[in-house]
Amino acid sequence: MSTKISQTAEVQSFFKQVVGLDNDAGSPRMKQVLLRVLQDCATLIEDLKVTDDEFWKAVDYLNRMGTNQEAGLLVAGLGLEHFLDLLQDARDHEAGAAGGTPRTIEGPLYVAGAPKSEGFARMDDGTDPGTVMMLHGQVTDTEGTPIAGATVDVWHASTKGTYSYFDQAQSDYNLRRRIVTDESGYYKARSIVPSGYGCPEQGTTQEVLNYLGRHGNRPAHIHFFISAPGHRHLTTQINFQGDEYLWDDFAYATREGLIGELRFIDDSSRAKEFALDVEKFAELKFDFQVLKVTESESEQRSKRPRALQQV
Amino acid sequence: MSTKISQTAEVQSFFKQVVGLDNDAGSPRMKQVLLRVLQDCATLIEDLKVTDDEFWKAVDYLNRMGTNQEAGLLVAGLGLEHFLDLLQDARDHEAGAAGGTPRTIEGPLYVAGAPKSEGFARMDDGTDPGTVMMLHGQVTDTEGTPIAGATVDVWHASTKGTYSYFDQAQSDYNLRRRIVTDESGYYKARSIVPSGYGCPEQGTTQEVLNYLGRHGNRPAHIHFFISAPGHRHLTTQINFQGDEYLWDDFAYATREGLIGELRFIDDSSRAKEFALDVEKFAELKFDFQVLKVTESESEQRSKRPRALQQV
Repeated sequence: MSTKISQTAEVQSFFKQVVGLDNDAGSPRMKQVLLRVLQDCATLIEDLKVTDDEFWKAVDYLNRMGTNQEAGLLVAGLGLEHFLDLLQDARDHEAGAAGGTPRTIEGPLYVAGAPKSEGFARMDDGTDPGTVMMLHGQVTDTEGTPIAGATVDVWHASTKGTYSYFDQAQSDYNLRRRIVTDESGYYKARSIVPSGYGCPEQGTTQEVLNYLGRHGNRPAHIHFFISAPGHRHLTTQINFQGDEYLWDDFAYATREGLIGELRFIDDSSRAKEFALDVEKFAELKFDFQVLKVTESESEQRSKRPRALQQV
Repeated sequence: MSTKISQTAEVQSFFKQVVGLDNDAGSPRMKQVLLRVLQDCATLIEDLKVTDDEFWKAVDYLNRMGTNQEAGLLVAGLGLEHFLDLLQDARDHEAGAAGGTPRTIEGPLYVAGAPKSEGFARMDDGTDPGTVMMLHGQVTDTEGTPIAGATVDVWHASTKGTYSYFDQAQSDYNLRRRIVTDESGYYKARSIVPSGYGCPEQGTTQEVLNYLGRHGNRPAHIHFFISAPGHRHLTTQINFQGDEYLWDDFAYATREGLIGELRFIDDSSRAKEFALDVEKFAELKFDFQVLKVTESESEQRSKRPRALQQV
């Protein structure tokens, strides 16, 4: 049967009552959005003949997903976070405000309040046996002018592919730092080469990916927020050339212009240059270009609710 | 700006990749449904100019809602559960299978496996100081033929408006019973008059209702599953005439044909008739009519995931 009632005056009027259009209290914006959500849900249920069993399976899924705190992981895996980037790119293009290092998704694993230092930071606590990584580069505007005092907020996974705070085995803020660029716009970090991330195998995101015939792996990557007064906030990530998942990221974050080259070095003079106590290490040089802006709003990252570590 | 990209070939192709249309694994049905969900989400985001902050607020909401196990309460409050009833009514009507006692929403607070007895059950454990309620009636088919051996699965709230299992202060299966009708189709229960339910004040459902300028109260009600071989399963509730929230239920469950009359009695002979040790009590007589069916599938309730109490 293809019975449809969602477009009837009775049902449309019911949904308007549900979202409180018959009262003056609450939030007009929330009423507008939820009315559309209800109309879309009802139409979807009818068009795809969603059964009661399917509906209640979805409701149960939402409870389990939230219990796992995996909503942020799911919207990444379903490409909605990437879609937001594509949409903002298109808006920038229309507004003549394109340019600079490409943005890409933040992901759900940022923790606010990492230690802040000038010019340089050591990011690892010394317990991860991974290859030492020297990460460095320059922050400039899109005309190449160095930006002193920019904040490079950087976070990445361990060699196990896990993140401090979410992986309780790691120390507080391990592999998370905020580095303020020096007078020439340079930042430098000592860390360890991260491994790729994989969705929890028993989690609710992987459950959906299994239904879609997809894996839940990401290439190794490093997250960045780049911010500086007078410049547009940049949320981005870099991947490594040669990673098996480079163009097969379950979260669709890989983009042209965001692929770095890890150079594996075995040279005591280069090690000395970086004041390293090991001769074998990896070097990753990556520069960022950010756009000059006049409206202060775009200097800020989104107000997305984020973890704030209690230390 | 009203930049739109969701209908471009690039984005449509991206969503098809996301849902795994390029592989043969997984579930074709899940791919179909999620493709529609992605398309609807993207179109909604563009049409309503959903900001990043709004999007991430919604994602955070889903995590908190699931943590609270309130997805089932929200779909009731947003009228989607009632919409499913309206849709099934329309389908029944088109199929010439309407009739009998009206269905209404189940709600999220059923617990499977309540004690079962023949003809009569006492539902309360004696600790609730509420007015004694004698609930009784007959189950027949739509032609009035009594149905012996029908299962009347009944559950309701305490005078505090809370349900056993979800309210840990109550004993196991308090106010939950399964009563099998006698040879004349009759069921009878002794219980206490329930109070109306209210959404948890600090919960995520009430949070949405506040945005919509709505309260989160329900009239007092009694839930029923009525099932019998050869007859369509009935999920319903009855309310009480005169309740202040009778036609102002936040979950929209009240329907014509489901309103019972609580008769308050102070008569020792009537009390003796019910073998009661109190003279003042309330009587509620309610009969159910269920439809004869030939397909055994409709004899069953939905496979909605439900709580199963461990006793």
